[in-house]
Order: sequence, then C-alpha cells, then structure tokens
Amino acid sequence: MMIKRNEKQHSRRNFIKNSAVLIGATGAWSQLTYAEDAETKKFLLNRSFKVGMAGYSFINFNIDQALAMMKRTDVKFLCIKDFHLPYDSTDIQIEEFLTKLQQAGVTGYAVGPIGDEIDIDRAFDYAHRVGVKLITGIPALKDLPSINMKVKQYDICYAIHNHGPDETRYTDATAVYNLIKDLDTRIGLCFDIGHNMRYGSNPVVDLEKFSHRIFDIHLKNVTAASEEGKACELGRGVIDIPAFIKTLHKINYSGCCCLEHEKDMTDPLPGIAESLGYFNGVCDGLTI
Amino acid sequence: MMIKRNEKQHSRRNFIKNSAVLIGATGAWSQLTYAEDAETKKFLLNRSFKVGMAGYSFINFNIDQALAMMKRTDVKFLCIKDFHLPYDSTDIQIEEFLTKLQQAGVTGYAVGPIGDEIDIDRAFDYAHRVGVKLITGIPALKDLPSINMKVKQYDICYAIHNHGPDETRYTDATAVYNLIKDLDTRIGLCFDIGHNMRYGSNPVVDLEKFSHRIFDIHLKNVTAASEEGKACELGRGVIDIPAFIKTLHKINYSGCCCLEHEKDMTDPLPGIAESLGYFNGVCDGLTI
Repeated sequence: MMIKRNEKQHSRRNFIKNSAVLIGATGAWSQLTYAEDAETKKFLLNRSFKVGMAGYSFINFNIDQALAMMKRTDVKFLCIKDFHLPYDSTDIQIEEFLTKLQQAGVTGYAVGPIGDEIDIDRAFDYAHRVGVKLITGIPALKDLPSINMKVKQYDICYAIHNHGPDETRYTDATAVYNLIKDLDTRIGLCFDIGHNMRYGSNPVVDLEKFSHRIFDIHLKNVTAASEEGKACELGRGVIDIPAFIKTLHKINYSGCCCLEHEKDMTDPLPGIAESLGYFNGVCDGLTI
Repeated sequence: MMIKRNEKQHSRRNFIKNSAVLIGATGAWSQLTYAEDAETKKFLLNRSFKVGMAGYSFINFNIDQALAMMKRTDVKFLCIKDFHLPYDSTDIQIEEFLTKLQQAGVTGYAVGPIGDEIDIDRAFDYAHRVGVKLITGIPALKDLPSINMKVKQYDICYAIHNHGPDETRYTDATAVYNLIKDLDTRIGLCFDIGHNMRYGSNPVVDLEKFSHRIFDIHLKNVTAASEEGKACELGRGVIDIPAFIKTLHKINYSGCCCLEHEKDMTDPLPGIAESLGYFNGVCDGLTI
C-alpha cells in the first residue's frame, strides 16, 4: 500500500527512452545510440532494441485506440496496416495520419503486411507516399521480379513475411531465403518466429543463419511447434525467447522487434503488456 | 497474422504449472518441487518461485473481478484483504469465499495487511478461521508482546510490513528487524521492496541480510529512491529487479513473491500483466 503523492517521472526506462537517438539509414536499419552513465549502462546495453507493434494486432481497433494501448505499454514504433491507413489515402489523409502518430510519440517505421490485394506498383507508391523505407508483405511469386525492380527504383526495402504451415510458398525463413537469395539485397525477411516454429523450424537457428537478410521480426510465441500451435503471450510458449534475444545481441540486430499479438484480439491489451514486460525482463535478466 | 485453429493448450508454462506440487509446512513456506525433463529443467529452475497477488491491488474490485484478472495473468496465490473477506465474516461466509478461490484455482496463502483496525485477538482468530498460516500486518508497537504470545498459541506467523518514509515505526527492513529480532522467530517481515527503496534502503542488500526472517515479499518497483518515488510497473523503476531475483535464488527463498500493484488502480490489469511478464522474463533470462 502507498500513500498517493504528486507524480515525478524519473525512471530508468524514461532515461533510456529520452536519451535514445535514432539515426536514419537507407535500405537498412541502424542501431540506436545512447548517452551512457554507470547506473544505466547495463540496461542501455540490454534494451538497445527497437520495440514495435505490428498494426495487425489492433485489427479490432481504430488508430486512436491502438495508439492509446501503445502509450500505456510505452511502445514507440508501429508497422502501419491498411485498415488504419487505406492504400487509397490521399496525401492529405496520410499527412493527418502521420501527424497523429507524431503527436503520440510513435514512429510508423514500415507498412504491411501487404498481400496481393494491391499490385506491386501501388504498394511501392503507397509506401513512398507514407514515407517509410520498409514494406512487409506476402507477394504473389510472379511479382518477385517486379519487386526486384521496385526496390531499386524507390530504394525501399521489401521484407517477405513467412507464414508457416498455413501456406505453401513462404513457410519458414529457409523457404523465403531460397526465393530471394539471388535478388537485390533490399529484398529480405519479415521473420515471423511463431509461424517458423509452427512449421517446425527453430527461430533461434534461423535468426543467425539468415541475419543478413532479416529486416523485421514478428515477435510472438506459440503453444506448440506444429500446425496446431496457437499464438500466446511471449513467456508462455515453446520458443526459447531468452536464446532468441541472446542471438539478437550476437548478430547486432538493428531492425525492429515488432510484437504481433494474436490472442484475445478483441481485448489484447493485457496480453500485449505481459509480452512486452516479458521481453524487457529477459533483456534485463540476460548477462551479455 | 495467423489462421485461427482449434486450441490445444500445450505450453511449457502449463507443464510447469501442472507438475507443481505444493508441500505444506508449519510456520515456514516450503519450496515447490517439480517433475523434471531436459526441455523444461532450466525454466523449472528459474521459475521455482510462488507468484502471488496482494489483495490490496484490487481495492477497487470485488473478488470475482480480482479472480478474473488473476486467471488472465495466470496467478495462483492471493493474500486476502478484508475488503474481500471482512473480519466479521461468519464461518459459512469464509467457507463460501474459500470455495470460490478453490474453483478459480487460487490459494489464499495469507491475510492482510492488517493494521490496528482490529485487535490482535481478533486478527489471529480471523486468520485461524480462514485457515492460513501467515498474517501480514502493520501493528501498533504496544501490540508486539501480544503478537509474540499469539504466534505461539496459534502457530501462525506474523509478518510486519515495512512502509517507507510514510511512517515512523516500520520504515524499512532494518527498522522492522530491530523491533522483532528478539521475539519469537514466527514473527518476521513482509518485505515491501518499493517502500524500502523509497526510504533509501537497498532491497537487494536487505533481502540477503534479513532472509531468515522474511516470510513474504511485496513485489513492486518505484520511480525514485526517495519519498517522492511512485509505484510503477516492475520493469520501469529504480530497483534492480534482476539483482533482486538473483538474490532470491541465492537465499533459496521459499515464500511468495507477491505483486502489490499500485498504479492505475481503477484499471490495473495492463500494469499487473506487464509486471508479471517482466518477473517471468527476468527469471527466464537469468543464468543461475
């Protein structure tokens, strides 16, 4: 029990947040750099990942509700879904949307996942008008050559989302890699570790193996390493998240760790909060 | 994104939960023991603590609402507050209350904190009728001799809750210990690590120093190591929780790690979920 007093925000986490400087880069995601002092050095090191939310997690909520949940859980990066910002948005609508994110302290770092509901030209035009340097998507195989041209034309990266046993082309990281390895290096993976595990492929092994082409991560856990595996809170599943985060450090991962929460989707906030707490807990607990 | 399928609960966490066997003991809290296999051994070791909720966290909610939040966050132990089970409850009312907990899979492991709103005789009679072996409390100093007799009479432990700079008797663990060190060893501490920190005393150091008399822990974090420090989520404050959990392992702590959540108390579930996720994350991230 505590006697209520006037609030004075002065937490270590706020220090970390306030001292973060995001340096932009073209075609790749840069490391966060921080001011350092003795007290915070360990936590700065362990929490050096960008943590974001996949817009899909908020499929049942409008952008204001989504941003309120992100504020509550202190998340600053969002992969924008079209149900929040439609593909046919005007430039003015895009500007209003981005202003709303900015006022919430949120950076829209990517758009997607985009399927084949719009053609490749429109997808890149949309990303360009939104002003992001990354598209995540599940493209038709026939569109890979077009994507290969567009990433050069726009200098926008395209990360293919693996989808596990639920589909046949982009099952796991290996399948995606085999399809893109000879294409422009701006084509890579949006590595969904839950679907990878459901396909029976180890996310920890694949993270290291394909690290040079992993641009984005859909962070989640699943209840089983099989098709029956169901999305669950990050600390309640079969993926060894501590080993995964250790490997993120090992490969100096500089993309976004983007939580895609797919349980209790009409009331996701407690599960999102638990998962993000777990992620930070593992980061802080690790000795690296 | 995930295609919805029939649920099959098969997580590591469930395995841990299902294989836990709680062994009762008189006047002290026993270790959980587990079945072990190679896959789960590390997590069993790291998550061997009993995690509970302080009933005070749910001051704005009835017991049904509290139990629903505990179910959502998978917490199995509750320190019962009188606003959920009044001191003057009849034996039948107590029986109904305990049945409700049992049906929710929750164990009421203690009652309190009890202040001086009821006398010592009634406090012990209440605990005895509820059937717990632990009272947490903030007693009047004049009542310590009575408590010293009652713990013998009932063989029920009494853990004094330290309350930081907001009061003068039980400021930190040292202050409590100095008052009880020569009393019956069934009198100990309900160690509130947030208030200890707000008083300027290091919870990690004091946990080890007074481990032999710490029967219960109020787990929390605070925004500053001063009177102005405010309760916050476990991973957002100035207490070094990883170091604290390492010390819990070092001293083989076998009591309850009882989250007392005191932020956003009219809408506490997201903060509770984040804090519990953080606790489990640190446990899993530690190499012990």
